[in-house]
Amino acid sequence: MEARTKAEVLRRLRSVAGHVEGIARMVEEDAYCIDIIRQIQAVQRALAKVNDLVLAQHLRACVTTAIRGEDPEERERVLEEIVEVFEAAQKI
Amino acid sequence: MEARTKAEVLRRLRSVAGHVEGIARMVEEDAYCIDIIRQIQAVQRALAKVNDLVLAQHLRACVTTAIRGEDPEERERVLEEIVEVFEAAQKI
Amino acid sequence: MEARTKAEVLRRLRSVAGHVEGIARMVEEDAYCIDIIRQIQAVQRALAKVNDLVLAQHLRACVTTAIRGEDPEERERVLEEIVEVFEAAQKI
Amino acid sequence: MEARTKAEVLRRLRSVAGHVEGIARMVEEDAYCIDIIRQIQAVQRALAKVNDLVLAQHLRACVTTAIRGEDPEERERVLEEIVEVFEAAQKI
Repeated sequence: MEARTKAEVLRRLRSVAGHVEGIARMVEEDAYCIDIIRQIQAVQRALAKVNDLVLAQHLRACVTTAIRGEDPEERERVLEEIVEVFEAAQKI
Repeated sequence: MEARTKAEVLRRLRSVAGHVEGIARMVEEDAYCIDIIRQIQAVQRALAKVNDLVLAQHLRACVTTAIRGEDPEERERVLEEIVEVFEAAQKI
Repeated sequence: MEARTKAEVLRRLRSVAGHVEGIARMVEEDAYCIDIIRQIQAVQRALAKVNDLVLAQHLRACVTTAIRGEDPEERERVLEEIVEVFEAAQKI
Repeated sequence: MEARTKAEVLRRLRSVAGHVEGIARMVEEDAYCIDIIRQIQAVQRALAKVNDLVLAQHLRACVTTAIRGEDPEERERVLEEIVEVFEAAQKI
Protein backbone atom coordinates (compact mmCIF):
# COMPACT_ATOMS: atom_id res chain seq x y z
CA MET A 1 0.00 0.00 0.00
CA GLU A 2 1.31 3.46 -0.92
CA ALA A 3 2.75 5.20 2.18
CA ARG A 4 0.33 8.10 2.42
CA THR A 5 -2.75 5.89 1.96
CA LYS A 6 -1.35 3.40 4.44
CA ALA A 7 -0.87 6.11 7.08
CA GLU A 8 -4.39 7.44 6.49
CA VAL A 9 -5.95 3.96 6.65
CA LEU A 10 -4.05 3.15 9.85
CA ARG A 11 -5.07 6.49 11.41
CA ARG A 12 -8.73 5.80 10.63
CA LEU A 13 -8.62 2.20 11.86
CA ARG A 14 -7.10 3.30 15.16
CA SER A 15 -9.79 5.94 15.49
CA VAL A 16 -12.43 3.25 14.86
CA ALA A 17 -10.92 0.90 17.47
CA GLY A 18 -10.97 3.73 20.03
CA HIS A 19 -14.51 4.67 19.02
CA VAL A 20 -15.70 1.08 19.52
CA GLU A 21 -14.15 1.00 22.99
CA GLY A 22 -15.95 4.25 23.74
CA ILE A 23 -19.23 2.61 22.70
CA ALA A 24 -18.48 -0.30 25.03
CA ARG A 25 -18.14 2.21 27.88
CA MET A 26 -21.50 3.73 26.88
CA VAL A 27 -23.06 0.27 27.15
CA GLU A 28 -21.42 -0.36 30.54
CA GLU A 29 -22.74 2.99 31.79
CA ASP A 30 -26.26 2.20 30.47
CA ALA A 31 -26.32 5.04 27.95
CA TYR A 32 -29.53 5.54 25.94
CA CYS A 33 -29.87 2.77 23.35
CA ILE A 34 -30.54 5.10 20.43
CA ASP A 35 -27.34 7.02 21.22
CA ILE A 36 -25.46 3.70 21.17
CA ILE A 37 -26.97 2.81 17.78
CA ARG A 38 -26.10 6.26 16.43
CA GLN A 39 -22.46 5.78 17.49
CA ILE A 40 -22.31 2.31 15.94
CA GLN A 41 -23.72 3.71 12.71
CA ALA A 42 -21.00 6.41 12.78
CA VAL A 43 -18.39 3.64 13.09
CA GLN A 44 -19.98 1.76 10.17
CA ARG A 45 -19.73 4.90 8.04
CA ALA A 46 -16.09 5.38 9.09
CA LEU A 47 -15.30 1.80 8.08
CA ALA A 48 -17.03 2.34 4.73
CA LYS A 49 -14.70 5.28 4.12
CA VAL A 50 -11.68 3.08 4.87
CA ASN A 51 -13.00 0.57 2.31
CA ASP A 52 -13.20 3.34 -0.29
CA LEU A 53 -9.55 4.27 0.34
CA VAL A 54 -8.34 0.66 0.24
CA LEU A 55 -10.31 -0.13 -2.94
CA ALA A 56 -9.03 3.00 -4.69
CA GLN A 57 -5.49 1.98 -3.78
CA HIS A 58 -6.08 -1.60 -4.95
CA LEU A 59 -7.51 -0.50 -8.29
CA ARG A 60 -4.53 1.69 -9.08
CA ALA A 61 -1.99 -0.91 -8.02
CA CYS A 62 -2.79 -4.63 -8.21
CA VAL A 63 -5.80 -4.35 -10.53
CA THR A 64 -4.04 -2.14 -13.06
CA THR A 65 -0.95 -4.37 -12.98
CA ALA A 66 -3.03 -7.53 -13.49
CA ILE A 67 -5.20 -6.09 -16.28
CA ARG A 68 -2.20 -4.69 -18.15
CA GLY A 69 -0.43 -8.03 -17.68
CA GLU A 70 -0.53 -11.00 -20.06
CA ASP A 71 -2.21 -13.56 -17.78
CA PRO A 72 -5.96 -13.73 -18.59
CA GLU A 73 -6.66 -15.85 -15.48
CA GLU A 74 -5.02 -13.23 -13.26
CA ARG A 75 -7.11 -10.56 -14.98
CA GLU A 76 -10.30 -12.53 -14.42
CA ARG A 77 -9.40 -13.13 -10.77
CA VAL A 78 -8.95 -9.46 -9.89
CA LEU A 79 -12.16 -8.50 -11.71
CA GLU A 80 -14.15 -11.18 -9.85
CA GLU A 81 -12.78 -9.87 -6.56
CA ILE A 82 -14.04 -6.36 -7.35
CA VAL A 83 -17.52 -7.70 -8.12
CA GLU A 84 -17.38 -9.74 -4.88
CA VAL A 85 -16.60 -6.77 -2.62
CA PHE A 86 -19.12 -4.59 -4.53
CA GLU A 87 -21.77 -7.28 -4.04
CA ALA A 88 -20.89 -7.49 -0.32
CA ALA A 89 -20.97 -3.69 -0.04
CA GLN A 90 -24.55 -3.75 -1.35
CA LYS A 91 -25.46 -6.16 1.46
CA ILE A 92 -24.00 -4.22 4.36
CA MET B 1 -23.47 -4.85 -23.32
CA GLU B 2 -22.92 -8.49 -24.22
CA ALA B 3 -26.17 -10.03 -25.55
CA ARG B 4 -26.75 -12.61 -22.85
CA THR B 5 -26.08 -10.16 -20.01
CA LYS B 6 -28.26 -7.58 -21.72
CA ALA B 7 -31.17 -10.03 -21.97
CA GLU B 8 -30.76 -11.02 -18.32
CA VAL B 9 -30.57 -7.40 -17.14
CA LEU B 10 -33.64 -6.45 -19.18
CA ARG B 11 -35.57 -9.46 -17.85
CA ARG B 12 -34.75 -8.49 -14.27
CA LEU B 13 -35.57 -4.80 -14.81
CA ARG B 14 -38.96 -5.69 -16.28
CA SER B 15 -39.61 -7.97 -13.34
CA VAL B 16 -38.71 -5.10 -10.97
CA ALA B 17 -41.04 -2.67 -12.79
CA GLY B 18 -43.89 -5.17 -12.50
CA HIS B 19 -43.05 -5.82 -8.86
CA VAL B 20 -43.14 -2.09 -8.07
CA GLU B 21 -46.57 -1.81 -9.70
CA GLY B 22 -47.70 -4.74 -7.59
CA ILE B 23 -46.52 -2.89 -4.48
CA ALA B 24 -48.51 0.17 -5.59
CA ARG B 25 -51.61 -2.04 -5.73
CA MET B 26 -50.83 -3.30 -2.21
CA VAL B 27 -50.74 0.32 -1.03
CA GLU B 28 -54.01 1.12 -2.80
CA GLU B 29 -55.64 -1.90 -1.17
CA ASP B 30 -54.28 -0.88 2.28
CA ALA B 31 -52.09 -3.94 2.69
CA TYR B 32 -50.22 -4.33 5.99
CA CYS B 33 -47.33 -1.84 6.11
CA ILE B 34 -44.67 -4.37 7.08
CA ASP B 35 -45.65 -6.53 4.09
CA ILE B 36 -45.20 -3.46 1.86
CA ILE B 37 -41.75 -2.78 3.36
CA ARG B 38 -40.78 -6.43 2.88
CA GLN B 39 -41.74 -6.24 -0.80
CA ILE B 40 -39.82 -2.99 -1.29
CA GLN B 41 -36.77 -4.58 0.34
CA ALA B 42 -37.11 -7.52 -2.08
CA VAL B 43 -37.08 -5.03 -4.98
CA GLN B 44 -34.00 -3.31 -3.53
CA ARG B 45 -32.22 -6.67 -3.39
CA ALA B 46 -33.26 -7.43 -6.98
CA LEU B 47 -31.87 -4.08 -8.13
CA ALA B 48 -28.62 -4.79 -6.26
CA LYS B 49 -28.30 -8.02 -8.25
CA VAL B 50 -28.77 -6.09 -11.50
CA ASN B 51 -25.98 -3.74 -10.40
CA ASP B 52 -23.70 -6.74 -9.84
CA LEU B 53 -24.37 -7.98 -13.38
CA VAL B 54 -23.86 -4.56 -14.97
CA LEU B 55 -20.64 -3.90 -13.03
CA ALA B 56 -19.22 -7.33 -13.93
CA GLN B 57 -19.99 -6.60 -17.58
CA HIS B 58 -18.44 -3.13 -17.36
CA LEU B 59 -15.26 -4.42 -15.73
CA ARG B 60 -14.68 -7.00 -18.45
CA ALA B 61 -15.43 -4.58 -21.28
CA CYS B 62 -14.85 -0.85 -20.87
CA VAL B 63 -12.59 -1.04 -17.80
CA THR B 64 -10.30 -3.69 -19.26
CA THR B 65 -10.11 -1.81 -22.57
CA ALA B 66 -9.29 1.48 -20.84
CA ILE B 67 -6.70 0.01 -18.47
CA ARG B 68 -4.95 -1.90 -21.25
CA GLY B 69 -5.05 1.26 -23.39
CA GLU B 70 -2.36 3.95 -23.55
CA ASP B 71 -4.35 6.90 -22.20
CA PRO B 72 -3.56 7.39 -18.47
CA GLU B 73 -6.42 9.89 -18.07
CA GLU B 74 -8.92 7.36 -19.46
CA ARG B 75 -7.51 4.77 -17.05
CA GLU B 76 -7.89 7.11 -14.11
CA ARG B 77 -11.45 8.01 -15.15
CA VAL B 78 -12.71 4.42 -15.24
CA LEU B 79 -11.03 3.63 -11.90
CA GLU B 80 -12.62 6.68 -10.24
CA GLU B 81 -16.02 5.60 -11.54
CA ILE B 82 -15.62 2.17 -9.88
CA VAL B 83 -14.75 3.79 -6.55
CA GLU B 84 -17.74 6.15 -6.99
CA VAL B 85 -20.31 3.38 -7.50
CA PHE B 86 -18.67 1.29 -4.73
CA GLU B 87 -18.89 4.28 -2.38
CA ALA B 88 -22.56 4.80 -3.36
CA ALA B 89 -23.26 1.08 -2.88
CA GLN B 90 -22.00 1.39 0.70
CA LYS B 91 -24.53 4.18 1.30
CA ILE B 92 -27.60 2.43 -0.02
CA MET C 1 -52.62 4.14 5.53
CA GLU C 2 -53.39 7.79 6.21
CA ALA C 3 -54.57 9.51 2.99
CA ARG C 4 -51.75 12.00 2.57
CA THR C 5 -49.02 9.40 3.20
CA LYS C 6 -50.79 6.98 0.87
CA ALA C 7 -50.88 9.56 -1.94
CA GLU C 8 -47.19 10.37 -1.42
CA VAL C 9 -46.17 6.71 -1.33
CA LEU C 10 -48.16 5.97 -4.50
CA ARG C 11 -46.68 8.99 -6.27
CA ARG C 12 -43.16 7.82 -5.42
CA LEU C 13 -43.82 4.21 -6.39
CA ARG C 14 -45.17 5.30 -9.79
CA SER C 15 -42.13 7.49 -10.27
CA VAL C 16 -39.90 4.48 -9.43
CA ALA C 17 -41.76 2.22 -11.89
CA GLY C 18 -41.31 4.82 -14.65
CA HIS C 19 -37.66 5.29 -13.69
CA VAL C 20 -37.03 1.55 -13.92
CA GLU C 21 -38.58 1.46 -17.40
CA GLY C 22 -36.33 4.35 -18.36
CA ILE C 23 -33.33 2.32 -17.19
CA ALA C 24 -34.51 -0.60 -19.32
CA ARG C 25 -34.49 1.74 -22.33
CA MET C 26 -30.93 2.82 -21.42
CA VAL C 27 -29.90 -0.86 -21.45
CA GLU C 28 -31.64 -1.45 -24.80
CA GLU C 29 -29.84 1.58 -26.26
CA ASP C 30 -26.47 0.37 -24.88
CA ALA C 31 -25.99 3.32 -22.57
CA TYR C 32 -22.71 3.49 -20.60
CA CYS C 33 -22.77 0.86 -17.81
CA ILE C 34 -21.75 3.26 -15.04
CA ASP C 35 -24.65 5.57 -15.98
CA ILE C 36 -26.99 2.57 -15.70
CA ILE C 37 -25.60 1.70 -12.26
CA ARG C 38 -25.96 5.33 -11.15
CA GLN C 39 -29.63 5.32 -12.19
CA ILE C 40 -30.28 2.02 -10.41
CA GLN C 41 -28.66 3.42 -7.27
CA ALA C 42 -30.96 6.47 -7.55
CA VAL C 43 -33.95 4.10 -7.68
CA GLN C 44 -32.63 2.20 -4.64
CA ARG C 45 -32.41 5.49 -2.72
CA ALA C 46 -35.94 6.43 -3.81
CA LEU C 47 -37.25 3.07 -2.57
CA ALA C 48 -35.43 3.58 0.74
CA LYS C 49 -37.30 6.86 1.14
CA VAL C 50 -40.62 5.09 0.52
CA ASN C 51 -39.67 2.59 3.25
CA ASP C 52 -39.05 5.46 5.66
CA LEU C 53 -42.53 6.89 4.95
CA VAL C 54 -44.26 3.51 5.30
CA LEU C 55 -42.41 2.65 8.53
CA ALA C 56 -43.22 6.04 10.06
CA GLN C 57 -46.87 5.50 9.19
CA HIS C 58 -46.82 1.97 10.61
CA LEU C 59 -45.21 3.05 13.87
CA ARG C 60 -47.84 5.71 14.49
CA ALA C 61 -50.74 3.46 13.59
CA CYS C 62 -50.51 -0.32 14.04
CA VAL C 63 -47.47 -0.35 16.35
CA THR C 64 -48.88 2.27 18.72
CA THR C 65 -52.27 0.52 18.77
CA ALA C 66 -50.67 -2.86 19.48
CA ILE C 67 -48.30 -1.59 22.19
CA ARG C 68 -51.04 0.35 23.94
CA GLY C 69 -53.31 -2.71 23.68
CA GLU C 70 -53.64 -5.51 26.25
CA ASP C 71 -52.36 -8.42 24.16
CA PRO C 72 -48.68 -9.10 25.03
CA GLU C 73 -48.30 -11.49 22.06
CA GLU C 74 -49.55 -8.82 19.64
CA ARG C 75 -47.08 -6.37 21.21
CA GLU C 76 -44.21 -8.82 20.79
CA ARG C 77 -45.20 -9.52 17.19
CA VAL C 78 -45.11 -5.88 16.06
CA LEU C 79 -41.79 -5.30 17.83
CA GLU C 80 -40.23 -8.35 16.17
CA GLU C 81 -41.40 -7.08 12.79
CA ILE C 82 -39.62 -3.75 13.35
CA VAL C 83 -36.37 -5.54 14.22
CA GLU C 84 -36.84 -7.75 11.13
CA VAL C 85 -37.18 -4.85 8.67
CA PHE C 86 -34.36 -2.95 10.44
CA GLU C 87 -32.13 -6.03 10.16
CA ALA C 88 -33.04 -6.35 6.45
CA ALA C 89 -32.41 -2.62 5.92
CA GLN C 90 -28.87 -3.13 7.25
CA LYS C 91 -28.33 -5.84 4.62
CA ILE C 92 -29.52 -3.88 1.60
CA MET D 1 -30.02 -2.61 29.26
CA GLU D 2 -31.09 -6.06 30.39
CA ALA D 3 -28.09 -7.97 31.84
CA ARG D 4 -27.90 -10.77 29.31
CA THR D 5 -28.22 -8.45 26.30
CA LYS D 6 -25.67 -6.11 27.86
CA ALA D 7 -23.15 -8.93 28.30
CA GLU D 8 -23.72 -10.09 24.71
CA VAL D 9 -23.38 -6.57 23.28
CA LEU D 10 -20.20 -5.95 25.28
CA ARG D 11 -18.74 -9.31 24.17
CA ARG D 12 -19.42 -8.45 20.53
CA LEU D 13 -18.06 -4.90 20.82
CA ARG D 14 -14.83 -6.19 22.36
CA SER D 15 -14.54 -8.74 19.57
CA VAL D 16 -15.01 -5.92 17.02
CA ALA D 17 -12.34 -3.74 18.68
CA GLY D 18 -9.88 -6.65 18.58
CA HIS D 19 -10.85 -7.42 14.98
CA VAL D 20 -10.19 -3.81 13.96
CA GLU D 21 -6.76 -3.93 15.58
CA GLY D 22 -6.08 -7.13 13.68
CA ILE D 23 -6.99 -5.33 10.44
CA ALA D 24 -4.57 -2.54 11.35
CA ARG D 25 -1.83 -5.18 11.65
CA MET D 26 -2.81 -6.53 8.21
CA VAL D 27 -2.38 -3.02 6.79
CA GLU D 28 0.99 -2.61 8.53
CA GLU D 29 2.15 -5.95 7.10
CA ASP D 30 0.95 -4.98 3.59
CA ALA D 31 -1.69 -7.70 3.36
CA TYR D 32 -3.62 -8.01 0.08
CA CYS D 33 -6.11 -5.12 -0.20
CA ILE D 34 -9.11 -7.31 -1.03
CA ASP D 35 -8.44 -9.37 2.12
CA ILE D 36 -8.43 -6.13 4.13
CA ILE D 37 -11.74 -5.04 2.59
CA ARG D 38 -13.25 -8.47 3.29
CA GLN D 39 -12.24 -8.18 6.96
CA ILE D 40 -13.66 -4.65 7.22
CA GLN D 41 -16.92 -5.88 5.68
CA ALA D 42 -17.01 -8.66 8.30
CA VAL D 43 -16.66 -6.01 11.02
CA GLN D 44 -19.45 -3.95 9.44
CA ARG D 45 -21.71 -7.02 9.53
CA ALA D 46 -20.77 -7.68 13.16
CA LEU D 47 -21.67 -4.10 14.07
CA ALA D 48 -24.99 -4.44 12.24
CA LYS D 49 -25.77 -7.45 14.43
CA VAL D 50 -25.00 -5.39 17.56
CA ASN D 51 -27.43 -2.74 16.28
CA ASP D 52 -30.13 -5.39 15.92
CA LEU D 53 -29.62 -6.49 19.54
CA VAL D 54 -29.62 -2.92 20.89
CA LEU D 55 -32.71 -1.93 18.89
CA ALA D 56 -34.62 -5.03 20.01
CA GLN D 57 -33.74 -4.19 23.60
CA HIS D 58 -34.76 -0.55 23.14
CA LEU D 59 -38.10 -1.47 21.59
CA ARG D 60 -39.05 -3.74 24.47
CA ALA D 61 -37.95 -1.28 27.13
CA CYS D 62 -37.97 2.47 26.50
CA VAL D 63 -40.23 2.42 23.42
CA THR D 64 -42.89 0.23 25.03
CA THR D 65 -42.80 2.34 28.21
CA ALA D 66 -43.11 5.59 26.25
CA ILE D 67 -45.91 4.35 23.96
CA ARG D 68 -47.91 2.91 26.85
CA GLY D 69 -47.35 6.16 28.78
CA GLU D 70 -49.59 9.24 28.75
CA ASP D 71 -47.17 11.76 27.22
CA PRO D 72 -47.91 12.11 23.48
CA GLU D 73 -44.71 14.12 22.93
CA GLU D 74 -42.61 11.36 24.48
CA ARG D 75 -44.39 8.84 22.26
CA GLU D 76 -43.68 10.90 19.17
CA ARG D 77 -40.03 11.33 20.15
CA VAL D 78 -39.32 7.61 20.49
CA LEU D 79 -41.11 6.85 17.20
CA GLU D 80 -39.10 9.51 15.37
CA GLU D 81 -35.89 8.02 16.75
CA ILE D 82 -36.79 4.60 15.34
CA VAL D 83 -37.42 6.10 11.88
CA GLU D 84 -34.11 8.02 12.18
CA VAL D 85 -31.99 4.92 12.88
CA PHE D 86 -33.92 2.93 10.24
CA GLU D 87 -33.27 5.70 7.71
CA ALA D 88 -29.56 5.72 8.68
CA ALA D 89 -29.42 1.92 8.45
CA GLN D 90 -30.65 2.18 4.86
CA LYS D 91 -27.74 4.52 4.10
CA ILE D 92 -24.95 2.39 5.54
